[in-house]
Amino acid sequence: MNTASLKKWFRALAPIGALPEGGVTRLAYSAEEDLMFGATAGIARQIGLSVTEDCAGNMFISFPGREKEPCHLIGSHLDSVPGGGRFDGVAGVLAALLVMDKIRKNGEDLPVRAAAFRAEESSLYGLATAGSGVVAGSVNIAHLKNARSLSGESLYDAMIRKGYAPGACRLEHALDFMELHIEQGRVLFEAKEPLGVVTAIAAPTRLKATVLGRQDHSGATPMDLRKDALCAAAEIILATEAAGRDEMRFATVATVGVADVVPNALNVVPGSVELRIDIRGIRRESIRRTVGKVQRAIEEIAASRDLSCTTETLSSMDPVTLAPSMIDSLSEAASETGVPFRKMASGAGHDAMKIAPVVPTGMLFIPCDEGISHNSAENASLNDVALGAEVLLKSIRLRRLSIEKTNAETPRRTESAP
Amino acid sequence: MNTASLKKWFRALAPIGALPEGGVTRLAYSAEEDLMFGATAGIARQIGLSVTEDCAGNMFISFPGREKEPCHLIGSHLDSVPGGGRFDGVAGVLAALLVMDKIRKNGEDLPVRAAAFRAEESSLYGLATAGSGVVAGSVNIAHLKNARSLSGESLYDAMIRKGYAPGACRLEHALDFMELHIEQGRVLFEAKEPLGVVTAIAAPTRLKATVLGRQDHSGATPMDLRKDALCAAAEIILATEAAGRDEMRFATVATVGVADVVPNALNVVPGSVELRIDIRGIRRESIRRTVGKVQRAIEEIAASRDLSCTTETLSSMDPVTLAPSMIDSLSEAASETGVPFRKMASGAGHDAMKIAPVVPTGMLFIPCDEGISHNSAENASLNDVALGAEVLLKSIRLRRLSIEKTNAETPRRTESAP
Repeated sequence: MNTASLKKWFRALAPIGALPEGGVTRLAYSAEEDLMFGATAGIARQIGLSVTEDCAGNMFISFPGREKEPCHLIGSHLDSVPGGGRFDGVAGVLAALLVMDKIRKNGEDLPVRAAAFRAEESSLYGLATAGSGVVAGSVNIAHLKNARSLSGESLYDAMIRKGYAPGACRLEHALDFMELHIEQGRVLFEAKEPLGVVTAIAAPTRLKATVLGRQDHSGATPMDLRKDALCAAAEIILATEAAGRDEMRFATVATVGVADVVPNALNVVPGSVELRIDIRGIRRESIRRTVGKVQRAIEEIAASRDLSCTTETLSSMDPVTLAPSMIDSLSEAASETGVPFRKMASGAGHDAMKIAPVVPTGMLFIPCDEGISHNSAENASLNDVALGAEVLLKSIRLRRLSIEKTNAETPRRTESAP
Repeated sequence: MNTASLKKWFRALAPIGALPEGGVTRLAYSAEEDLMFGATAGIARQIGLSVTEDCAGNMFISFPGREKEPCHLIGSHLDSVPGGGRFDGVAGVLAALLVMDKIRKNGEDLPVRAAAFRAEESSLYGLATAGSGVVAGSVNIAHLKNARSLSGESLYDAMIRKGYAPGACRLEHALDFMELHIEQGRVLFEAKEPLGVVTAIAAPTRLKATVLGRQDHSGATPMDLRKDALCAAAEIILATEAAGRDEMRFATVATVGVADVVPNALNVVPGSVELRIDIRGIRRESIRRTVGKVQRAIEEIAASRDLSCTTETLSSMDPVTLAPSMIDSLSEAASETGVPFRKMASGAGHDAMKIAPVVPTGMLFIPCDEGISHNSAENASLNDVALGAEVLLKSIRLRRLSIEKTNAETPRRTESAP
């Protein structure tokens, strides 16, 4: 793989949405995400590839003339969380470009297409993997209209504002899909293994909890006459943490990432607080238990403090098991490189989980330093990105052999995802 | 008292800073506070009074030609908390106008001046009673420069931006000061007493606590590897509530009114949280114990969660005992009206506590519905405002008699505040 090109591409994208204190902010459907898509399209064209866009703004990079041919799809996303890192998502898109650049230089006849999906992060609108979800058919117009930023704009409005037409198209001409991504956890980093073949992807259930207390003067309201919404919210935050800790052996996690206090003034007992809660796991039963514990805790806290707490499920997805055939080809390709690797689950959600129900889908992890991601301190190795691209290419070659063999034996059979 | 005029004035001010959902937002040195000052000056001029402004933007309303004569000063403030009520502060300024209107109509020779102070609420800059504090000499330029809004502007910058010159003047020509204010607590409301003579004012100590955890991916970071700043903040919020509850028998209260979470995103373990804590009481020892308990709790929480929590004291004031001579004259005047009243402490801070060290100061409470204030549901009775104005006028007459008697006996003696 051409790591010199990879470094050049990575450096070209680095300034987009860069923050003075380090890290990048490239939110879904923002000007910064547009710049990422534009710059990546520019790189693709420079290396002789053609670029198309779908009805949600997702970008596809093809060998010229093969835009409508069934291809092996590889890619990831280009947006980031606020103050996030430069590898999350970008690593997978650049790895796909590396693979296509290599195929072109080799003169190989391999049908491959790169994908860059929009709006993978849920930071702005509270809905993750929106770009891939829309074209995979699992995210509908109602979901998009219900997903609103704090300013009140819906994800649907944002797509329309950008000139897209969500719902008007579906993912086409894909034989299968592979996504390379940084692990965003500590497993590979601590094991000093440069590759992980993903077997399952944890899915998030997102709750919104609204606490309605009574806004009062902080000096003149005795402690026993208060209905302090922030104190109730604090109990909910700790109950959510406890529920996550209870399920640690099943790798389930529970997080309160957002707390908005009203009126958030020094001399006022808080009148209301909105919390957003993220619960994830790869075991359905454990996720269900955790959501139940959080909801029961919220009811008990509301009752004990004699105030109102309502919960709303913003989204609820099932964990996804990836296609055994993809796990096999990725594992075989990883073995061929001779580096240590492991099969593992993904704690984070990815576009791959949206594509998995549509075509056979695989996923490859590379490590990130200290497992830190969604943070300006996120870092990974471009050598690992190149190594991963090598594995993707080997895996595609194995898939070709297998497909050709299958077609020769039973011409009309195609594999479907579990 | 002319309650018809009072109703007209109150209605004229009502739309300023009014929110669609009810309540008003008239923050310190904002356009809305300016409108309140302009409209009140207009009312004063309509009833034949003259208006002057000091170096901090505080407004004084005099009988024409008597602007520099030593006068009995009466008044309060015109700003509000975000989403606050229409009586907090305004009641005291309108009561002062009623008193002056009555004196003028009676043709009485009583030297009285009304005051409207700026920036009594600490919501925007985290510093309370700034307008009265600056001219009383207890709030200096350094305090003003350290008091910053979330946008980063200091109270000093705001005053300069408005064309004022804090530090360039002091409160002048005041014989004594009286402030009428809604109680902002439930004591008078539940006792069905229309008047309270204030004996002491609780003083706030304000702390800023900054929790520095580690910003991480909420899906891929196992529960036992987290340094969740919001979970630590939740424990601090509950420890602050517990510290306040421990001191309930001394009427001390402790509140976390502000919580700002970074990055406040659904899929990110919070990296840092800033809390602002308000502790108030009328017993120095109890305030000190409460502050100590909160600070020790913060240290313990930081140690147990292995993250960093720093605290900073934003301001710390001593409770204020009001002048016995003012308490006496207000009590005698209240008795003369024949309505039930009580002597009581104030849990909330007021401009009166800033003026008390400079000239003899008294304070009169009227009830507010359910004790609710700093809330859009705040409500009080304009009849009670008029009754309070009656008591202020009677009290001024008693003060005149006493001063004339004292002058006759010992011409040069003036009373100083405790």
